[in-house]
Amino acid sequence: MAIQVSVCGPRQCTEEDRQNAFELGRLLAEREAVVICGGYSGVMAAVAAGVKTVGGIVVGILSRADREDANPDLTIAIPTGLGEGRNNVIVNSGDAVLVVGGSWGTLSELALAMRRGRAPVIQLGGWALYNERGNPVPGVARASTPTEALELTGLWK
Amino acid sequence: MAIQVSVCGPRQCTEEDRQNAFELGRLLAEREAVVICGGYSGVMAAVAAGVKTVGGIVVGILSRADREDANPDLTIAIPTGLGEGRNNVIVNSGDAVLVVGGSWGTLSELALAMRRGRAPVIQLGGWALYNERGNPVPGVARASTPTEALELTGLWK
Amino acid sequence: MAIQVSVCGPRQCTEEDRQNAFELGRLLAEREAVVICGGYSGVMAAVAAGVKTVGGIVVGILSRADREDANPDLTIAIPTGLGEGRNNVIVNSGDAVLVVGGSWGTLSELALAMRRGRAPVIQLGGWALYNERGNPVPGVARASTPTEALELTGLWK
Amino acid sequence: MAIQVSVCGPRQCTEEDRQNAFELGRLLAEREAVVICGGYSGVMAAVAAGVKTVGGIVVGILSRADREDANPDLTIAIPTGLGEGRNNVIVNSGDAVLVVGGSWGTLSELALAMRRGRAPVIQLGGWALYNERGNPVPGVARASTPTEALELTGLWK
Repeated sequence: MAIQVSVCGPRQCTEEDRQNAFELGRLLAEREAVVICGGYSGVMAAVAAGVKTVGGIVVGILSRADREDANPDLTIAIPTGLGEGRNNVIVNSGDAVLVVGGSWGTLSELALAMRRGRAPVIQLGGWALYNERGNPVPGVARASTPTEALELTGLWK
Repeated sequence: MAIQVSVCGPRQCTEEDRQNAFELGRLLAEREAVVICGGYSGVMAAVAAGVKTVGGIVVGILSRADREDANPDLTIAIPTGLGEGRNNVIVNSGDAVLVVGGSWGTLSELALAMRRGRAPVIQLGGWALYNERGNPVPGVARASTPTEALELTGLWK
Repeated sequence: MAIQVSVCGPRQCTEEDRQNAFELGRLLAEREAVVICGGYSGVMAAVAAGVKTVGGIVVGILSRADREDANPDLTIAIPTGLGEGRNNVIVNSGDAVLVVGGSWGTLSELALAMRRGRAPVIQLGGWALYNERGNPVPGVARASTPTEALELTGLWK
Repeated sequence: MAIQVSVCGPRQCTEEDRQNAFELGRLLAEREAVVICGGYSGVMAAVAAGVKTVGGIVVGILSRADREDANPDLTIAIPTGLGEGRNNVIVNSGDAVLVVGGSWGTLSELALAMRRGRAPVIQLGGWALYNERGNPVPGVARASTPTEALELTGLWK
């Protein structure tokens, strides 16, 4: 089986998020990783487009029970019918979880990935977390470029 | 149907979290709300114990597919077999979502509740969120006591 | 914790199914069992109405992520947002699974309950199963009345 | 996006089921369909092996939250962590659902596919269903060979 990397991010994203997601998709597909994403618009569409430029495989784990609104660049669509419960399936499917940009849905994926604790979690942009004493919550690696994000996964050492 | 309130929080919690959760359970049951929780130890056990002192109803939405490790103070146990995917079911079940203390699992519940956007979300202690420009992410109300948390739900105006 | 019994059956049911479901609800609530059902119309509504006549507790495990269309006789509604995936949650929640009448959704619950294999499964009416050699598939007990169905669970010996 | 076909069947299957599943995998991959299956042993392993002989894509929708026990012939593994709730995801993912052999888990997939009602459902071997009046329950097409099963889907007319 190939390496699988999950890429999470919001539907409504910044132009910088979009560029980062596209580049991540391209770089992951070049390394022959299967890319797992949420399958709709925004960051999800950008990463799928990036994968497609090099003919890689990108799987959309959809919240709906059918393929309506699924991004046309997906290689495979999995209509879970779980609503936001599908975020846990996205997170479970990655040997690493890359998080681009910030939204409540995206944060739930980051938190579920950290809760699971079995794969590296890397943030590119997005929100920051502080505990009750005002200190940053540890555990999430931060990258400033897509290339650095891939290095931080440790999957291609 | 009665008012239903979801109370989320970590297994490993502080003594203050435990006291807050117990008091929330007691106050909610006095108001005849059905309490929804995750059904195991820590904050979940404390809220269930609080409900029990006044003979109320507390439902545990379990991650496991059986009742193993379920808290004995639960009135009803729902073994979803969804793992952390059950967090979404907890959040969907509340007319308000009260979050006590901080952990990655708890944060996923907070984020899913905000993503859903259909019920007030109130935090008692726990982590804080900042966006990319260093400003607090808006939307989560903060209470400093259980009584204030219940007032902020707006359910008993 | 009380005994929990899951009652499954179709939205579109016969008048006989409806009477059987109502009577099951009444008998289960008299025995202080918590009744778990799918929470909508047909057999689900009839069992909830039966529970209500004696002031018992009936939980609706809903397919939707909100309470729209939930039966008003439910004591508690759990909007799973899982679609038909909620059938597995219904089945997991019962110390026994009672199946009234026949439909594809109902059959999926019967099959999931038999697959799980941890609780007695009793059929009242409904479809019949034959294997490839034309013999009845063993394992599902058949009752001809609600009282017999409860006896066959073995829960009140 | 390619055509996606779900193939369901038991872990413990007959030698005939195994041969049918292998042949279905081979024929589907030759037609460039993506094959969706449960990802473990028995019929699931046989269909994956068939796909692999012609270099096609086969996705395993796993019940576990990790890849333990996943069949090594899978191209992609989706560890849902849903237990038997993953059967609904398998069924939702197919433009047609092919059912090989019989077991309670397999029957739940057949029933969920019929309940969904959006894709043709074809049985190769396995159990038979009769309603309360002793008549066969209509709706499931029956094939006697893998080639006939593919024809009955109507996907390659």
